[in-house]
Amino acid sequence: MGETYRVGLLGHGTVGAAFERLLGERAEAIEHITGRRPEVTGVLTRSRGDFEQILADSDLIVELIGGLDPARDYVLRAMRAGKHVVSANKLLLATYGEELWSCAREHNVQLRFEGAVAGVVPVIRVLQETLAAAHVERIHGIVNGTTNFILTEMARGGTSYQAALARAQELGYAEADPTDDVTGRDAAAKMAILARLAFSTPVHLDQVVYEGIEHLTPEDVAYARDLGLGLKLIGTAERVDGGISVRVHPAFLYPDHPLASVNGSFNAVTVESDAITEITLSGPGAGGPQTASAVLGDVISAMIPPASTPETSDQLPIVSDVESAFYLAMEVDDQPGVLAQVAEVLGMQGASIKSVLQKGLGGQARLVMVLHPLLESRFYGAVHLISRMPFVRSEPRAIRVIEEEFVD
Amino acid sequence: MGETYRVGLLGHGTVGAAFERLLGERAEAIEHITGRRPEVTGVLTRSRGDFEQILADSDLIVELIGGLDPARDYVLRAMRAGKHVVSANKLLLATYGEELWSCAREHNVQLRFEGAVAGVVPVIRVLQETLAAAHVERIHGIVNGTTNFILTEMARGGTSYQAALARAQELGYAEADPTDDVTGRDAAAKMAILARLAFSTPVHLDQVVYEGIEHLTPEDVAYARDLGLGLKLIGTAERVDGGISVRVHPAFLYPDHPLASVNGSFNAVTVESDAITEITLSGPGAGGPQTASAVLGDVISAMIPPASTPETSDQLPIVSDVESAFYLAMEVDDQPGVLAQVAEVLGMQGASIKSVLQKGLGGQARLVMVLHPLLESRFYGAVHLISRMPFVRSEPRAIRVIEEEFVD
Repeated sequence: MGETYRVGLLGHGTVGAAFERLLGERAEAIEHITGRRPEVTGVLTRSRGDFEQILADSDLIVELIGGLDPARDYVLRAMRAGKHVVSANKLLLATYGEELWSCAREHNVQLRFEGAVAGVVPVIRVLQETLAAAHVERIHGIVNGTTNFILTEMARGGTSYQAALARAQELGYAEADPTDDVTGRDAAAKMAILARLAFSTPVHLDQVVYEGIEHLTPEDVAYARDLGLGLKLIGTAERVDGGISVRVHPAFLYPDHPLASVNGSFNAVTVESDAITEITLSGPGAGGPQTASAVLGDVISAMIPPASTPETSDQLPIVSDVESAFYLAMEVDDQPGVLAQVAEVLGMQGASIKSVLQKGLGGQARLVMVLHPLLESRFYGAVHLISRMPFVRSEPRAIRVIEEEFVD
Repeated sequence: MGETYRVGLLGHGTVGAAFERLLGERAEAIEHITGRRPEVTGVLTRSRGDFEQILADSDLIVELIGGLDPARDYVLRAMRAGKHVVSANKLLLATYGEELWSCAREHNVQLRFEGAVAGVVPVIRVLQETLAAAHVERIHGIVNGTTNFILTEMARGGTSYQAALARAQELGYAEADPTDDVTGRDAAAKMAILARLAFSTPVHLDQVVYEGIEHLTPEDVAYARDLGLGLKLIGTAERVDGGISVRVHPAFLYPDHPLASVNGSFNAVTVESDAITEITLSGPGAGGPQTASAVLGDVISAMIPPASTPETSDQLPIVSDVESAFYLAMEVDDQPGVLAQVAEVLGMQGASIKSVLQKGLGGQARLVMVLHPLLESRFYGAVHLISRMPFVRSEPRAIRVIEEEFVD
């Protein structure tokens, strides 16, 4: 039997317990690959364990406490003591990432975090290694399983947001307090991390614009289906005008988009770059065993080769106004000339209509359209003007549409 | 400016030229990441360059000659001289893989080959690193872009195999001699490599059973569509009864299978394991720039950390008879009792019908069904009996169906 590789485990919740179990099951296979047998030599929870003692007894620290404090302090102290760290803490990395990566470089240790984004879907590794030297243009991601589950339920059952959320909570896909998920904040933290890696530029959670799914209605989903579109909560990180934009919002997808068929609690990320066109990675989002598996993959990698955490090479500005395609829906009086007048206002703002659907509802009509991409500021300007037209009976509803830009 | 990292390039065809160009474009970014600036310091083609000279002048050799000879000799000599090697040569690895990996271990050098399977889709890295210690149960892959393009054309246009092939050749998706692609041999070589990595057991190209797409008709595609199925050339590598099975054949997929929406020349691979459920990786198949990008990713990784090529840990037997679900179609006399008699023969062989479609054609009828999985030997036994029944007017047509086993 080979040498022991000592793993100190901080946190023993769902992921922590799953990680300890999985490590035990796979210890022999890992010993075969790495020559050393990994073993959890200390566990810190609220009620047991001493951090200093665990640190002294470990070759590597796995941080699964979550939250900012005391996680940040523990991770910094571990790296300063020369230990590699594996963490699945997206909030920590999206908030204090630069401080942590800089500390890792300074002390020549590895800080790995595959489990922080999209569970076992290996997007961190692919960005850091496969695409290390690629000029990434854009990332689209479904990086929150809870909201994707809710939207899938709404699409399948025609149910309301509230009913779909209740079902997600019943099945364990949503927490009792789902705020971080349904507001888009959780996805925003993950997109901040992906953008940092893709563009080598610092991105803080506070710089990510996000919008949640709480306001979506079954009608949005149903009418979109008439247009052949599906509704997802999409994170976007892209280069725009010499800067970057990082944002999260509900968006419709055409059926041939690689993310359109990602349903239920699954996660998926599409990375676009000139040299590679696009690659898509998908799989189950963060569940205990999946995140534990990602964490274990990081531990094994740390046992073999050094990972690189390159210095940021750019200080690209964050762009706030970007071009988007939009779905626009409203109730209008069912009278001649309505569409023409709406189209005129849109045209004045530079918006052109890609497809349109008008449905009479006796006296009223519902007008639904998809617009070609235009600057969001101009689009919202047009919506403001349209909402004040006399024949418009409801507040216009606007949702972004992600267009398939690659032909296969 | 940092130190130079000297790359010797063997072969200067489509991929080789694209690689040299891409390396030049990205040299500065790579220097930023690795501290060394990569440079092509020698090129070997049929008409120029001297292998020994290039070897002496290089830190790493990129092999893009293809074929077995002299590629095998060059790769072995490079590794014996202590140089890392990056290759995109699937035939070489599926034929002499064990010899090459063993040589790499012996001389403590890296042999990387991401470009050999599925272009820039990072399936090699994910199997070797992310899933290093996972117990992989099954891999399904669309790993040949040419055949996927042809089948997509047949599905879209209702065209014949010949017409779709001609179109693929016209657009550069198929070579003048498409034999290796359309017979499934190219896909078989790739599946041999994936199986070797997933199961840590030696797999030679000759051990992979493969069937091509030349015999498929527009009717197969059209009737399958009536059943909601799509037709793909699928590679499978899976654990069966304490052994493994590696095979390539046309197969129908239900629309919710992660590979069902992979169209055109794209490649995709799904890896299943208890701990992770499944992950799917997809992107453009082998084209010049895509493969070059995968090769460059390997070069960068070789410049940073050592890759592991673990010893095989098992000598698992190759299983020849496996369970498959089948689509079965035939022309029959349009008379009472036909379906009942066919069902009885199937039942005697242990086959049960999942869905059935009978369509009158005046005097004759077409009977199309999908069966639940059963041992292939028993299925073909039943087909043999059915083909001899008096009311059967055509040779029964059988195509495998891949079932979605995970619920999202």
